[in-house]
Amino acid sequence: MEPFRLTASQAQAKFSDGSLTVEQYAKSLLDRVAARDSTTNAWAYLNPELVLERARELDAIPPEKRGPLHGVAVGVKDVILTKDMPTQYNSPIYVDDAPKIDAASIMTLRANGALIFGKTTTTEFAATVVGPSHKGPRTANAHDPERTPGGSSSGSGSAVGDLQVPIGLGTQTVGSTIRPGSFNGIYAMKPTWNSISREGQKLYSLILDTLGLYSRSVDDLKLLLDAFQLVDDEPVKPFTIKGAKFALLTLPTPEWPDLGPGTIAALKKGADLLRKHGAEVEEIVLPDEFRQMYKYHLQVLAGDGRVAFLPDYTHSKDRMHQSLLDHVENKDKHTRKDQLKAFDELAAMRPKLDALASRYAAIIGPSVLDEAPIGLENTGNASFCAPWTVMHMPVVNVPGFKGENGMPIGLSVIAGRYRDQYLLSVCSEVGKVFEAEGGWSR
Amino acid sequence: MEPFRLTASQAQAKFSDGSLTVEQYAKSLLDRVAARDSTTNAWAYLNPELVLERARELDAIPPEKRGPLHGVAVGVKDVILTKDMPTQYNSPIYVDDAPKIDAASIMTLRANGALIFGKTTTTEFAATVVGPSHKGPRTANAHDPERTPGGSSSGSGSAVGDLQVPIGLGTQTVGSTIRPGSFNGIYAMKPTWNSISREGQKLYSLILDTLGLYSRSVDDLKLLLDAFQLVDDEPVKPFTIKGAKFALLTLPTPEWPDLGPGTIAALKKGADLLRKHGAEVEEIVLPDEFRQMYKYHLQVLAGDGRVAFLPDYTHSKDRMHQSLLDHVENKDKHTRKDQLKAFDELAAMRPKLDALASRYAAIIGPSVLDEAPIGLENTGNASFCAPWTVMHMPVVNVPGFKGENGMPIGLSVIAGRYRDQYLLSVCSEVGKVFEAEGGWSR
Repeated sequence: MEPFRLTASQAQAKFSDGSLTVEQYAKSLLDRVAARDSTTNAWAYLNPELVLERARELDAIPPEKRGPLHGVAVGVKDVILTKDMPTQYNSPIYVDDAPKIDAASIMTLRANGALIFGKTTTTEFAATVVGPSHKGPRTANAHDPERTPGGSSSGSGSAVGDLQVPIGLGTQTVGSTIRPGSFNGIYAMKPTWNSISREGQKLYSLILDTLGLYSRSVDDLKLLLDAFQLVDDEPVKPFTIKGAKFALLTLPTPEWPDLGPGTIAALKKGADLLRKHGAEVEEIVLPDEFRQMYKYHLQVLAGDGRVAFLPDYTHSKDRMHQSLLDHVENKDKHTRKDQLKAFDELAAMRPKLDALASRYAAIIGPSVLDEAPIGLENTGNASFCAPWTVMHMPVVNVPGFKGENGMPIGLSVIAGRYRDQYLLSVCSEVGKVFEAEGGWSR
Repeated sequence: MEPFRLTASQAQAKFSDGSLTVEQYAKSLLDRVAARDSTTNAWAYLNPELVLERARELDAIPPEKRGPLHGVAVGVKDVILTKDMPTQYNSPIYVDDAPKIDAASIMTLRANGALIFGKTTTTEFAATVVGPSHKGPRTANAHDPERTPGGSSSGSGSAVGDLQVPIGLGTQTVGSTIRPGSFNGIYAMKPTWNSISREGQKLYSLILDTLGLYSRSVDDLKLLLDAFQLVDDEPVKPFTIKGAKFALLTLPTPEWPDLGPGTIAALKKGADLLRKHGAEVEEIVLPDEFRQMYKYHLQVLAGDGRVAFLPDYTHSKDRMHQSLLDHVENKDKHTRKDQLKAFDELAAMRPKLDALASRYAAIIGPSVLDEAPIGLENTGNASFCAPWTVMHMPVVNVPGFKGENGMPIGLSVIAGRYRDQYLLSVCSEVGKVFEAEGGWSR
């Protein structure tokens, strides 16, 4: 198998037994990028010389001194600071801007031996729905160049889906990690809010922004959680589907938009597969006390966006998307009173939804409305990712299903806050079933 | 009057009428620093050439194009990124580290015409109680070189108190802005949480960290709030003490430590002065439902510190203070469950304390236990600043009182969330009384 096809964990096994060097692996990934980049346009910055230099440095480390992420190649969303590469936010204000500083996440990954590979495209400041076109054509889906990869973590979703890199970093404030995960047929995890430092990644909302993780296997997600020292209270035991009870949430509350046929079919098939493997699946809707969640999320975004985009607005408002100017100018006249109410009411909902989640092995819900739509201009609807973002709950997009046009569709698997490692143990088993029997394969 | 003695608003009046240039003003401030720096040691980085160059650039701007903060000199706590100066966090890991990037606050200040003057000392990562000694002797109080200036915003507190710069930036996670404000006899404001972008300032706790502002007048604080576009829902009218009703909070709940004689006297005198000027002052304690606040604050710090300091710990734990290692290693075995409970319960308290505050013109409470203690090693107790930090409420330290040794003591004046401009209107009048009749003067 060509090295670029390996997951990070598989590549690490080969580094360990000496059958592959990090440099050979990096070359294979770079070859894949070279072959595919003109189609997917997933990279905002990629310097092959730098990648190979870092790879050789990693190879030179004696085996006993190698970190737990030795040689793990990571594509970094271009809203996360990297001291050896530019960070450009897909904004004309920051073209070629290259501050010499690593974000907290990058610092931790590097110290664990990861190979920071390059910067992946993003929508402007990870805060618009316009498909990224970083100094060139727009980023395309890994599986159909005419379809959006989703956003705002467009490049990481596309690059990981297209085997150009095994691990991608994204961010999520609404659905910016989970949506590209579903659209590109990969695992995507938004961990519990504030469980990994978000320092050095572009701010949109303090109370919502979360680092997102992409991979093509649950093992790879676990590698990352371990490096970030994200541990649950309870030790995690292997999960068994048989006898477990899942909640199936087709519509969180009536406020949400209608699902498309692809996701409706995926939810049905997912439930059927779990039942077939011995689980109980209970279809639920959220109690009425959660109905304001949708509205409150938009109010929090408005209040927080007003603060987050003021600095750039102050010096360069002529070079920012209208939706960002609207935030700063408070176009919709949100009051502080409404903003505080949304903030406080969402806070009051969190322990309640944790309690609900604790009654099930996991909650399973839609990741997206349907498969990735045609067109690279708009990155699609992220509504169904919103509940778990505002509730701070860990969520994993598990791939395995397909839409009417054969494009991938994933389902969201959700647990209570700080049950991230537990959630991975669930996804490890659920993922095996969905990937094997869901009907879509890479 | 020597220019260095001017408040920022006073200096701006002179720039406007042509009687002072920014360069002349900067030279006067630099002379003051040169005369006093060996005593106070408030600066982590100060490059006179750079200051004068920037001052001349500001003078060259035609009057009609000058920003609202034209020529306002700002000392920046050395945990806030500045693209033309190093940011060193008083950490051996970051000696001479100089990433080319401005924090959000600095970007906004510069775009409004401020003169970013230099970097002021901080305790390590703004997160220990060890008085800062940035490559030299420890920072001293503006009014007694044997006493602590407080922390963690030690340098900004000392430099503004000592007339070396009219405006300082601090940060607050417990009491890092208000405590140095009281100890150095200046105005210190912690605005509503998340009302000014904290992007690009060192992270300790996402839900607590707040940019802090220092000045020697309320007018100067207003200049800053306006630049950061911090507006209330209601238009602010001039405040009148006569007929207003204040709450006097000598002890938030019984969990708090005992006050010293200086603060006890200041609270009594403050109440007497307000009554003398026609206000009603009602002594209150917080209802029992707030009693866990103190404990919850420590739990949030532990959980958030564990995340915030992991990156540096991963590569340089041998060069970090033990208290930071304890956070990362979760020395006190805080569970996720307790961490979430603290986070959620504090959230539930916030609207309740807003409601209580709305019944009064403002709440008045202690800023510190007493005047600044002797010794530069420890920055003192910050307990009394904690309630307003965890409750996200705006608070201003108003100076005017003195302790048994003649050192300054201030009182905290507090309002509900997002009533920052209103709070300044209160402090403007209360400050006049406290400064004129409180018994301490600069």
